Amino acid sequence: MTDLNTLDNESLTKLNAELLRKYDSLKAKKLSLDMSRGKPCPEQLDLSMDLLDIASSKELLRANESLDIRNYGGVEGLIEAKKLFGQILHVNPNEIIIGGNSSLSMMHDTISRALLNGVVDSDIPWGKEPKIKFLCPSPGYDRHFAICEMYNIEMITIDMLDDGPDMDKIEELVSKDESIKGIWCVPKYSNPDGITYSDEVVSRLAKMQTKATDFKIFWDDAYTVHHLTEQPPVLKNILKECKEEGHPNRVFMFTSTSKITFPGSGIAAMAASEENINFIKKQLSVQTIGPDKINQLRHVLFLQDLENITLHMKKHAEIIKPKFDMVLNILESELGRYNIASWSKPKGGYFISLNTLDGCATEVVKLASDVGVSLTQAGATYPYGKDPRDRNIRIAPTFPTLAELQTAIEIVCLCVLLASTKKLL
Amino acid sequence: MTDLNTLDNESLTKLNAELLRKYDSLKAKKLSLDMSRGKPCPEQLDLSMDLLDIASSKELLRANESLDIRNYGGVEGLIEAKKLFGQILHVNPNEIIIGGNSSLSMMHDTISRALLNGVVDSDIPWGKEPKIKFLCPSPGYDRHFAICEMYNIEMITIDMLDDGPDMDKIEELVSKDESIKGIWCVPKYSNPDGITYSDEVVSRLAKMQTKATDFKIFWDDAYTVHHLTEQPPVLKNILKECKEEGHPNRVFMFTSTSKITFPGSGIAAMAASEENINFIKKQLSVQTIGPDKINQLRHVLFLQDLENITLHMKKHAEIIKPKFDMVLNILESELGRYNIASWSKPKGGYFISLNTLDGCATEVVKLASDVGVSLTQAGATYPYGKDPRDRNIRIAPTFPTLAELQTAIEIVCLCVLLASTKKLL
Repeated sequence: MTDLNTLDNESLTKLNAELLRKYDSLKAKKLSLDMSRGKPCPEQLDLSMDLLDIASSKELLRANESLDIRNYGGVEGLIEAKKLFGQILHVNPNEIIIGGNSSLSMMHDTISRALLNGVVDSDIPWGKEPKIKFLCPSPGYDRHFAICEMYNIEMITIDMLDDGPDMDKIEELVSKDESIKGIWCVPKYSNPDGITYSDEVVSRLAKMQTKATDFKIFWDDAYTVHHLTEQPPVLKNILKECKEEGHPNRVFMFTSTSKITFPGSGIAAMAASEENINFIKKQLSVQTIGPDKINQLRHVLFLQDLENITLHMKKHAEIIKPKFDMVLNILESELGRYNIASWSKPKGGYFISLNTLDGCATEVVKLASDVGVSLTQAGATYPYGKDPRDRNIRIAPTFPTLAELQTAIEIVCLCVLLASTKKLL
Repeated sequence: MTDLNTLDNESLTKLNAELLRKYDSLKAKKLSLDMSRGKPCPEQLDLSMDLLDIASSKELLRANESLDIRNYGGVEGLIEAKKLFGQILHVNPNEIIIGGNSSLSMMHDTISRALLNGVVDSDIPWGKEPKIKFLCPSPGYDRHFAICEMYNIEMITIDMLDDGPDMDKIEELVSKDESIKGIWCVPKYSNPDGITYSDEVVSRLAKMQTKATDFKIFWDDAYTVHHLTEQPPVLKNILKECKEEGHPNRVFMFTSTSKITFPGSGIAAMAASEENINFIKKQLSVQTIGPDKINQLRHVLFLQDLENITLHMKKHAEIIKPKFDMVLNILESELGRYNIASWSKPKGGYFISLNTLDGCATEVVKLASDVGVSLTQAGATYPYGKDPRDRNIRIAPTFPTLAELQTAIEIVCLCVLLASTKKLL
């Protein structure tokens, strides 16, 4: 253990100079490595190539009995697809709406409909209120925050604790402020911390008294079957909990097959109480001619059921777990002894969350970028892109090859050391 | 010619009684025939079955060189798809955004973004204005009107003339009222009248002075390649016209392959000035992870180019033209001599527009429905579902078989006669 925080100035200066030499030598390599977005790698996508051939013309002619899925109709999706997503989210098929290829888009649309028309329990549309606010457990998912920012929804940062967001703070805020209309949650293998909400957190979210009568939980269960271990944590069923606590309409759940099959050509779904679903279906029938039912058939035929999905996700884990392990090993071996950084050890999901010394994240991301290693923008994991301690960096290890990843993460470690010695000097 | 309007009361009473007997005998048949929606029939869908097999796993692996179309990215669509729709709409590929499977959804989203954020030339979001209005040439498309109604956008009915909407009226209104923000147009083979806008109408729409600086034409070119004749009318290019008249940002064009390939699994696109496109792309990148690029590849491989689309659409016409002809022949033979109805003789598109005597449409639709023939709701072709003269009925002949269609249209003619004699008595 060489705690850099307690190192004398002379040693620090020497170390800094040595690191700088190493760093400068990297520039000549003209690297171009990307760890910025949670994208599956090509080998993962290859696992689903049968999807392209499974709903062939022959298959469709066979299936084509009661409903012609090529034609218009079926705004809520095929019953078979609703059953499949019912298994994934542990809800009834009649609590499901199937969307297009993007759960982000379903979340966006749910917000824009709420702004323009309100939700089922609203007195007036959210957009007609003088001001509305969302709670944003952070670090969190930048694309959730971008939707709020685009629509001028004020974001309140909530700290993430070890078992989910800071519930004491949340309960205090929602009980007093009726302009707080919602909260963003990634409850399983949270983006980027990899935290799965504890039973207590889920229960308290369902139970808490909110001043706004139309408060909604946006439950983005994006990584619900995306395990990296054999004994995955179990997430309490929020819809069931909300019903039991007398708030059946409080939650909108979202998920998709984006990181199960193909990110660009998957199937998204949302789940909620039947009252919510019926309210939304009415608006959806004005908004669209309905989702792509042939792609739903492809997914139903290919994924079959939850058991088969679990097997399929093991194949994903076989490809990406070595990448997570390599990043964690290098972080430990390169930074472990210096007491200048900490990082998550996720049991699933797509990210490793790295915390540097306060005030170093922007510098690290810039240093890495200058030698050809792209990281998610520093601050991106916080509302308005502003990390109050400027320390969080989201590492996305899935897309690069193992060799690329090794180079990239070694460079990140070097950049963390460099920024830390500079800061401590 | 037996003009019912000039028939004496005794003859009318006799005729009415005779028609009523015929009508009553239909009830026992327990029919179930649907002419309510513009849906392609199964034989039309069979024309595109190759679409299901064309982007096979083998094909994708071959194509998979620079961009992995299975993965995230490409919010505006594949360049190849933009080129294809550029040919269809006669615009540059960089003036195109490819959407999901629903052009209705692209139109809805364009309106909802305008309400929440404004369009490129807005000072404030449309939704922040005390009141906004849309011009609705009518009879028109019920789903356009439903979007306005859902968002409380006041609709102003504009008469359809032989060569498009009443431009004198439109120019007068938009020059004075800055709350008029847009107009819905189906410029080719209009829904339901089958009218193609004349060059003069297109020019005047592009040229007119609008009080609102952010006035937009929603140009739903849904039937742009959907001809029923060998010499189709040519629609003037509205985007080109708008540019020439100094209003390049005035028009949003929309189209889709819904009635070229599969209604539920087609590709939609919009076109506009590059300034409009860039403004929308920024918002789209917050709204969605991007459209389904694999389905775009399917369509690019299957449809190839405009020339091939033209050949493909001829096959559609071979299937549906006999249906249009049968409806027109029966209307003529059953109703032609009575001077109680008139109807369109479309050169393309999906509908025949039938006008009864004033005050008879609701009665005809009810009479038909009571003996098992579904027609589009009377009034549906007007804002708020209210046809001021209660005379327009939209007939959708494509979906039923020829035999079903013959029965259905004979019944409709009987119902028209029955309602007319009752009205004239």
